Amino acid sequence: MTQPFAQNLITTFTRLYRYAHLASMVGWDQSAMMPPKGNEARAAALAELQVLMHQTLTSESLEGLFKGAAAENLTEDERASVREMRRHWEEARRLPERLVEAQSLAQSRCEHAWRTQRKHNDWQGFLGNFREVVALARQEARLLADAKGSTCYDALMDKYEPGMRSVDIDRIFGDVKSWLPELIRKTVAKQSLETVIQPQGPFPISQQRSLGLEIMKVLQFDFDAGRLDVSTHPFCGGVAEDVRITTRYSEDDFMRSLMGIVHETGHARYEQGLPRELVHLPVGQARSMGIHESQSLFFEMQLGRSPQFLALIAPLINEHLGQQAAFDTTNLATLFSRVKPGLIRVDADELTYPAHIILRFEIERALIEGEIEAEDIPAMWDEKMMSYLGQDTRGNFQDGCLQDVHWPGGSFGYFPSYTLGSMYGAQFSASMRGSQPDLDAQVLAGNLSFIFSWLEKHIWCEGSRWSTDELVKRATGEALNPAHFRQHLERRYLGL
Amino acid sequence: MTQPFAQNLITTFTRLYRYAHLASMVGWDQSAMMPPKGNEARAAALAELQVLMHQTLTSESLEGLFKGAAAENLTEDERASVREMRRHWEEARRLPERLVEAQSLAQSRCEHAWRTQRKHNDWQGFLGNFREVVALARQEARLLADAKGSTCYDALMDKYEPGMRSVDIDRIFGDVKSWLPELIRKTVAKQSLETVIQPQGPFPISQQRSLGLEIMKVLQFDFDAGRLDVSTHPFCGGVAEDVRITTRYSEDDFMRSLMGIVHETGHARYEQGLPRELVHLPVGQARSMGIHESQSLFFEMQLGRSPQFLALIAPLINEHLGQQAAFDTTNLATLFSRVKPGLIRVDADELTYPAHIILRFEIERALIEGEIEAEDIPAMWDEKMMSYLGQDTRGNFQDGCLQDVHWPGGSFGYFPSYTLGSMYGAQFSASMRGSQPDLDAQVLAGNLSFIFSWLEKHIWCEGSRWSTDELVKRATGEALNPAHFRQHLERRYLGL
Repeated sequence: MTQPFAQNLITTFTRLYRYAHLASMVGWDQSAMMPPKGNEARAAALAELQVLMHQTLTSESLEGLFKGAAAENLTEDERASVREMRRHWEEARRLPERLVEAQSLAQSRCEHAWRTQRKHNDWQGFLGNFREVVALARQEARLLADAKGSTCYDALMDKYEPGMRSVDIDRIFGDVKSWLPELIRKTVAKQSLETVIQPQGPFPISQQRSLGLEIMKVLQFDFDAGRLDVSTHPFCGGVAEDVRITTRYSEDDFMRSLMGIVHETGHARYEQGLPRELVHLPVGQARSMGIHESQSLFFEMQLGRSPQFLALIAPLINEHLGQQAAFDTTNLATLFSRVKPGLIRVDADELTYPAHIILRFEIERALIEGEIEAEDIPAMWDEKMMSYLGQDTRGNFQDGCLQDVHWPGGSFGYFPSYTLGSMYGAQFSASMRGSQPDLDAQVLAGNLSFIFSWLEKHIWCEGSRWSTDELVKRATGEALNPAHFRQHLERRYLGL
Repeated sequence: MTQPFAQNLITTFTRLYRYAHLASMVGWDQSAMMPPKGNEARAAALAELQVLMHQTLTSESLEGLFKGAAAENLTEDERASVREMRRHWEEARRLPERLVEAQSLAQSRCEHAWRTQRKHNDWQGFLGNFREVVALARQEARLLADAKGSTCYDALMDKYEPGMRSVDIDRIFGDVKSWLPELIRKTVAKQSLETVIQPQGPFPISQQRSLGLEIMKVLQFDFDAGRLDVSTHPFCGGVAEDVRITTRYSEDDFMRSLMGIVHETGHARYEQGLPRELVHLPVGQARSMGIHESQSLFFEMQLGRSPQFLALIAPLINEHLGQQAAFDTTNLATLFSRVKPGLIRVDADELTYPAHIILRFEIERALIEGEIEAEDIPAMWDEKMMSYLGQDTRGNFQDGCLQDVHWPGGSFGYFPSYTLGSMYGAQFSASMRGSQPDLDAQVLAGNLSFIFSWLEKHIWCEGSRWSTDELVKRATGEALNPAHFRQHLERRYLGL
């Protein structure tokens, strides 16, 4: 941009990107590397950085720059860039610095204590810190809601999923609730008649790791621009130029670490595929968390658990973990599509996963809107777990409402993105199949180039140039259409 | 402190400590974890942070705060704290922001390219970046020299070794040059008659690592507040609350990684032993780089290579690397005190190491004072290497003047700290022996508590409360006395 106001905006947002780089890398370190006694100093340093980023994003000069840029003669791309900067600015300027700092410290304290409290099933101890996190999140939500003219919960969800409203989510999730329980029931019944050979462990961690690295190569992860490490809760962090994914290993189960790696590699390739020349500006960054999850879930669910992909990687599994009858390609496909309602979201299969999300959405919305208080969560959790998945969670907090990092970390409004991501992923897959009917044969033959080119062209390279709706329409010809997700599930699990 | 000006200074320097935390952790990551394509974004983020720290340290309000604090009724400890803050401030305020940023970027660029250029012996390519680094360092030196009323080189050395002047170094190093060559000659002659059994590799890296971790436990490294990782150039980084040391492994030589770990653990224990309640302020931080090196060199040279310590850890070596005749305790003591003039500083033995330092000091001082230019370095290097160590380095840049990270990274004036550290370490050791005559027997019995208590009380807990001279006088009853170093060497290598 040669226009002075827009140019000044670029300078400020480039600085913010560099600060975010620091936050992201030390955040990764905190989860993947840091010893326990480092936490207090780390939390203080991160809170200081949050305040600094907030100050930078809310500095008085920005209002004038946005006004000036609005009158400048900008290209369409430049206008998109300013629009995305403005979105970040509009959000930040509503929040006083003392709230941002208080949130950073309260979330860090709550999350750190939660790691121990969860192990000890200590809901009462957790509540002590968590009430403060909720109170501050409600303050944030109220301030953003007033500015956006939305409900409180929608104002938080909008941070992760710009433009999405809970009336939309209600409609989409309401539809899922109408057919999912029956689909789960039928699938479980059908699978109870299937023969499946269970893999026989132990699977040494070093071998699981080397297998994971091989699979990442198949998925064309760029190892010169990223790493694979270990953390309690797998995630994709770092920066677009240096993506850090993590997994966790258990000697008696190689499937979880393997699909965890496939999932995080999907996130990673999105980051590695963002438009490099714009990645320091909001317009060059990931569109939304739903789109981010669509990439990880496309990799894991559409591609990774498909019989064709499993057949493709079966020789690698044999090579790294040894020969077993369980590694027969047909059996692998059976293993990786088993459905079993359970307590833990991150261990849930593709079919029961949406039930976990719907439950969390309904609870966190009620919490943020003030319809319930933090202490009401367990009862609501127990009731919905029984209703949606037939699971009894009474008194079992560690495998119930204490299981996720999101709430202790103050992330309310994120959960819907997971199921939106599943739906976008299924829609992208359907669109690819529409223009490439022999996709399965290509995957079986190890040719993933059509898939990666499609994602790169339609999703990764676009960054945040378009709204989510527009991005999805341009990629697939229609806005979000959850019917693709249902079709995918019915095809995979009932063979319809 | 309840005095408002001093309290405001504490607030600012606490913020600076948090920024330094970020710089230190991502700096560690850059050396120990980062994949190559991450470097450009990392360098930009670090330069941005350097500018921010410089802005914070030079903000206009500080002058008033220092004036105000000078009139406040402070305790002696509080005055020491303000004195150390002021030292940092006086240095920073002389340097314009654009110079700080230009240095950060030029050093990062030069160091990054050097990693490849060194491998390719590419002195000409290196010069292209290095001239800029030198030009900027001279600008910095000139500005600081004018403010401090010192020579240019002394102004840079003062950053690492407050109060030390090159006339002192000339006197100390001049003395060393008068006796070291003869001591080396005699030692090499003496050792040529000794029998030594060489260890038979390979030594798998995982076994070297587990041995290193065991030795760190013997040395009481706190693993809840630090880590051991791998980097090309071993260092001690991180923050006092979370110390990151690194080493490097070679399958055919376990001795280098082992003594590297002992050395860095000395640095680490200094950091871990700093006064925790003051570590966020300059007065609670390490006194000088010479004192820092005195801790690592005490651990490595005074303790780690002593026959008693080697006898203590011999069973661990046997346990982790297998049984070998070379691991006999007498042979270990012989192995770890072998003297052989060579090209590489970091591989040099205790006796020839000072010659490497003196050479670098003489060259970098001439370079900073403008007596030579960057392109004159190889000739001067060749001449001094031949004169001090009898080594021919003509045309061999990678094992000559391209071997160290200091100059590409813009650190001029640091090298003398290594040999000052050796001297302080020997002086501390002599002082300990004065009050604890059976120290060797204690070490042999695995009782290191007197040593660690002495260091903790006299060095670690003191932080930067006293000047270096005062610290050393309080610990040993006299200021720096290089005679202890000479005595130690003559005792160890000639049995005098």
